[in-house]
Amino acid sequence: MDYVDKMRGSIKTPFARKSLKHVNSFKAMDVMRRASELESSGRKIIHLEVGEPDFPTVAPIVDAAKKALDEGLTQYTSPTGIVDLKYRLSELYSRRHGLSVSPERILITPGASGGLVLLANLLVEAGDEILITDPAYPCVRNFIRLMSATPRLIPIDAYRNFRPMVSQLEKANNSSTKGIWLASPNNPTGTVLDRETLTKLAVWARATNNHFLVDEIYHGLHYVSDLPSALEVESKSFVINSFSKYFGMTGWRLGWIVVPDEYVQQATRLAQNLYICASSISQYGALGAFTPDAEILLEHRRNEFNQRRVYFCNALSEIGLPPAASVDGAFYVYADISHFSDNSQKFCQLMLEKYGVAMTPGADFGEYKSDQYVRMSFTTSRDNLELGIERLQLALESLG
Amino acid sequence: MDYVDKMRGSIKTPFARKSLKHVNSFKAMDVMRRASELESSGRKIIHLEVGEPDFPTVAPIVDAAKKALDEGLTQYTSPTGIVDLKYRLSELYSRRHGLSVSPERILITPGASGGLVLLANLLVEAGDEILITDPAYPCVRNFIRLMSATPRLIPIDAYRNFRPMVSQLEKANNSSTKGIWLASPNNPTGTVLDRETLTKLAVWARATNNHFLVDEIYHGLHYVSDLPSALEVESKSFVINSFSKYFGMTGWRLGWIVVPDEYVQQATRLAQNLYICASSISQYGALGAFTPDAEILLEHRRNEFNQRRVYFCNALSEIGLPPAASVDGAFYVYADISHFSDNSQKFCQLMLEKYGVAMTPGADFGEYKSDQYVRMSFTTSRDNLELGIERLQLALESLG
Repeated sequence: MDYVDKMRGSIKTPFARKSLKHVNSFKAMDVMRRASELESSGRKIIHLEVGEPDFPTVAPIVDAAKKALDEGLTQYTSPTGIVDLKYRLSELYSRRHGLSVSPERILITPGASGGLVLLANLLVEAGDEILITDPAYPCVRNFIRLMSATPRLIPIDAYRNFRPMVSQLEKANNSSTKGIWLASPNNPTGTVLDRETLTKLAVWARATNNHFLVDEIYHGLHYVSDLPSALEVESKSFVINSFSKYFGMTGWRLGWIVVPDEYVQQATRLAQNLYICASSISQYGALGAFTPDAEILLEHRRNEFNQRRVYFCNALSEIGLPPAASVDGAFYVYADISHFSDNSQKFCQLMLEKYGVAMTPGADFGEYKSDQYVRMSFTTSRDNLELGIERLQLALESLG
Repeated sequence: MDYVDKMRGSIKTPFARKSLKHVNSFKAMDVMRRASELESSGRKIIHLEVGEPDFPTVAPIVDAAKKALDEGLTQYTSPTGIVDLKYRLSELYSRRHGLSVSPERILITPGASGGLVLLANLLVEAGDEILITDPAYPCVRNFIRLMSATPRLIPIDAYRNFRPMVSQLEKANNSSTKGIWLASPNNPTGTVLDRETLTKLAVWARATNNHFLVDEIYHGLHYVSDLPSALEVESKSFVINSFSKYFGMTGWRLGWIVVPDEYVQQATRLAQNLYICASSISQYGALGAFTPDAEILLEHRRNEFNQRRVYFCNALSEIGLPPAASVDGAFYVYADISHFSDNSQKFCQLMLEKYGVAMTPGADFGEYKSDQYVRMSFTTSRDNLELGIERLQLALESLG
C-alpha cells in the first residue's frame, strides 16, 4: 500500500497527548480500591478517605425527581438550566448573603466539575498562567494543564491558616498570569477565607487585572458565623457551587456557577457546546431542596456534621494528631503526621493495611509539604469515627 | 494603592480568552428562541429545527430510575460507570456487530458530550491538527479549538454522498495532524459511511499514524441493513455513542465511549477529573433499556422514525426540495435550497417568519457551501410533517 511510503509515523506519536502525564490520578482512588479489597476479605475498614456525605439524598428532592419522571420531563433543558431553579438560587444569595444576583448570571452545570471545566475553557488558553494554592482540590490544576496553560502554585501554610498572602501573589504575578483560583471552604484543609482576607485578595486581583475565581462548593457546610461569598467582596467574581455537598446530591451531578453579566453570553455558548445541559431530572429534583421540609432536613445534617467535627477534632488532638488549622468548613481535617512519619503515602498505607483506617495522603492535593500531611473526612458515622480514633491511637502509640 | 503602579493591565486583557471568538453559537438556538416567541403570540409553528426525539423516555427506563431513587442509589459511581451497564453495552456490541468488546474498554459518560470532551482532552493538545468533515456536528470543531488546536475541515459533497475521500485526507495530512474525527450516521446530512468507505478511511488513518475517532451516536436509528461500527474495521478506533437518540434519553445526559485497551487508564484518570462520574440515576435508569419491554418500544420508535423518513423525503422531493443525499440514518434531511435562495440564513428566516416552519441553516455545521443548505429534522409528528410540507410547498411556489 502506497500510503505506507508516505508515512510520517517516525515524527508523529500515535499515543495520548504528551502533557497528559501531568494530569495526576488520585491516590484517594487507590486507597478506596484497596479498602474495598480488604473489606471483601472480611475486614472492617473505617473510611476517612471519602469526600462524599454518607447520607442518601433527602426525600423531598427524591420525590421532586420522581414527579418529574412521572410528568415526562426527560428532554433537554435550556443550556443554562431551568428558570425556576435559577430563581431559587438567586433567592439563596439574597437570603444567605444579602446579595442581588440576577438569575441570568447563574448557569446550572453538570456537577461543580462541569462549572470548573466551563470556566477553564472560558478564561484560560495555551500559555496562560493561573495562580492556585497548594494544597487545593487537584482537578483545577489539571484543568489548567489540559488547556496547555500553567497552574502557578502558591504554597499555603498551616501557621497562616492556609491563606495565601498578597505578597506571594504579587511575586508570582507576571504578564502571562490571567487569574487567581481559590476555594473557601478549602479542600483538603477545611479552612475558610475570612472576609478581610477575601477582600484583600479580590482587591489585588482587580488591581492587577486578574480574574477572581472562587470555589464555594462547601458553602452551607461551614461552622463559623460569617462566611462571605466572593460575590460580596467583588461583584465581578466567578463563583462555583454545587448541589453535592450541603444539598447531599453527589450522584445527581448538579452544580452552578455565577459569572459577571458581560460573560453570560459566552458562558452560555460554551455550555451548549460542552454539555448541552445538566440532567433534567436532577434539575427538577433540586427544586425539592427549596421546600420547608428539605430545609429542615438539610440543617439537621449540617448539625450532624458539626457535632462530628467537634468530636473528631477534639479526639484527634487528644491522641496527638490535631488538625493543622481550625476546621471551619467542609468535612475535612488536614493533619500533620511528621511526628510519626516523613512519608504520608507510606503512613496512609500502614494505617490502612495494619489498622484498617483509610485516609488520603497529602500528595493528592499538591506538592508543598504534601509528604507530611494526610486528609481525613468525617463523612462516616459517630460510631465509626470513635472506632477510627481507637485504632489511630493504637497506631500512633506504636509509632511515637 | 501600590499594586496599581505595578499594574500590567495594558498588556493583559481581563476578558475571556481570545480564541473563544471561534467558538460559534448555534443558529438553531436563535431559531428555537424566535419560534417560541412566535408561538407565544399565538402562531402554530412546525418544528423542523430540533435535534431531539419528540417521544418521552420509555416506561421501563423511567421505572428503573424510580427504583434506583427508592433504593437511595444517589451517590457517586465509579468514574467509568456502573459495571452492569458496561456489560449490557458489551453485549450490545456482540449482538449488533458480532464484536467482543471488553466492558473495561467502555466508559460511561455524561452525555456523548462528556465523551467528546474527554477524547479531545485525551488526544489533542495545543498546536495539533484534527481532520473533520465539513459539514459536521459543530461542537467537535469547537472542542478542538478550545484545546488551542486546529480543526482542519475536509469539504464533503452531496454528489459523493457526503463521504470524504482518502485523497483529501492525504492532501490535508501533515506533521501536526493527529487524527481524523468522523460521524456515521452524520449530522446534518443523515448519510452513513458504508463498510467499504469506513475501511478505507481506517486503513489510511492507521497507515499515517492518525487516531481514528468515530461518532456513532445515531447508531440504532439507521435505515440500511448494514451499518458497521468503526470497531469492526479498526480495533483501535475511539468510538462515541449516546443514550440520547435511539434510547430516547436526551435530558438524562448519558453516553459512552470505547477506547483501545492501552488508553483505558488515562481515559479513566480524565473521567475522574472532568466529571467524576455520570449521573447515578441516569445510569441505573439506562439498565431499564435492556429489557424485552423496552426493546419492543424502542424498535417501535425506530419504525416510526423510518415511516416519517419515507414520507418526508418523498414529499420534499415532490415539492422540489429533495434531500441532497440518501437519508440512511439519524432523523435529518440536508437539502439544497440554491434554486430558491443564495442565503440559507435568510431563507430559514423567511420560512419561519412568513410560513411558520422552523429549520436550521447550513451555517451551523460548517463553511463549505453552507449558504446553500438547510437541515430539517423529522422529530415531529406525521401530522405536523404534513402541515410543514403544505407550508413549504406554498413558500417554494412563491419563490420558484
